[in-house]
Amino acid sequence: MTMSQGSLYIVSAPSGAGKSSLISALLKENSAQDMKVSISHTTRAARPGEENGTHYHFVSVETFKNLMKENAFLEHAEVFTNYYGTSRLWIDEMISKGIDVFLDIDWQGAIQIRKNMPEAKSIFILPPSREELARRLDARGQDSKDVIEKRMAQACGEISHYNEYDYLIVNDNFDVALSDIKAIVRAERIKQDKQACKYNDMLDRLVAQ
Amino acid sequence: MTMSQGSLYIVSAPSGAGKSSLISALLKENSAQDMKVSISHTTRAARPGEENGTHYHFVSVETFKNLMKENAFLEHAEVFTNYYGTSRLWIDEMISKGIDVFLDIDWQGAIQIRKNMPEAKSIFILPPSREELARRLDARGQDSKDVIEKRMAQACGEISHYNEYDYLIVNDNFDVALSDIKAIVRAERIKQDKQACKYNDMLDRLVAQ
Repeated sequence: MTMSQGSLYIVSAPSGAGKSSLISALLKENSAQDMKVSISHTTRAARPGEENGTHYHFVSVETFKNLMKENAFLEHAEVFTNYYGTSRLWIDEMISKGIDVFLDIDWQGAIQIRKNMPEAKSIFILPPSREELARRLDARGQDSKDVIEKRMAQACGEISHYNEYDYLIVNDNFDVALSDIKAIVRAERIKQDKQACKYNDMLDRLVAQ
Repeated sequence: MTMSQGSLYIVSAPSGAGKSSLISALLKENSAQDMKVSISHTTRAARPGEENGTHYHFVSVETFKNLMKENAFLEHAEVFTNYYGTSRLWIDEMISKGIDVFLDIDWQGAIQIRKNMPEAKSIFILPPSREELARRLDARGQDSKDVIEKRMAQACGEISHYNEYDYLIVNDNFDVALSDIKAIVRAERIKQDKQACKYNDMLDRLVAQ
């Protein structure tokens, strides 16, 4: 068997749709270690509990700007004077090793990624209703009413871009949504070009007259 | 919820790869009745045990030729003076009802189908090796050595078209191969355009500011 390339998955969702929990569950079950989440570079300071190389690659503004000049990012953005970016190098390396990479990113980042890597597959995760989204944001217990209202408005804005994605998952039941993501990954891995690479020798023997 | 359209799946394989068993198992588990196998029209005589409308639609040569003139077939072929064809009408009807249709057909039929319905997804099923294919053909106990050798040569010819398909499934372990087909169908159903149709009202409410 020959190694076939991994895939890049863009995953977007409004806050409260359950994106992070779904990606965590997917990777937790993945004993084969052939899936990873992309870790962003950022110039913001690490918060308590955040580790360099696990939550983010924490770098200086100078380093970040140099990486930008070298075209090292598949996408980057400035948010409240901090820079965030996705390293092209690390993703290329993982994909060449046959590892699927998941990129947790908003619709604006998704547009940049698609432009730089058109073969990336994109998944949008939806909450089942406005009411459920509001309930989930409220249940976190970490935000005031004002903040929740602002997040709801942001969520509507994010959701309005759902039609730019390849797949749409409704996270009503967590296990169903998780099985949906798994089906996407499984189907993608048996695409003809990937299998033809993986089973190259076997196919040669089967076709030989 | 609004009804989204079903998909057409072309399924090809050399004799002995396990195509029929896989499609049967898939449909047997399908309690939702949202998958069907396309039933071909043929001018050949029914064999003992074959029922009209179940195994084939048995029609006269005249009827078949009239249907051909009306462009009623998505594909058709003449094999040993008998005609075989796939009705466009029935498939369109099923797809419009949200039913996925499976079309058991060889690579030549697959080419015609793709031409007439480019949105069809195509799946090629492979045996894991020449030796296993020969063993499976022999285990049927219904063919002579000569016939098996002929079938092996035919199989090589059929397999040489694997790269014209969207998906490639290696049927080494039946349950794994069955899960592969299920993943393809599941992933196809959560494609953005299908979900946008199904969850039209929900999306309108989620996006409304």
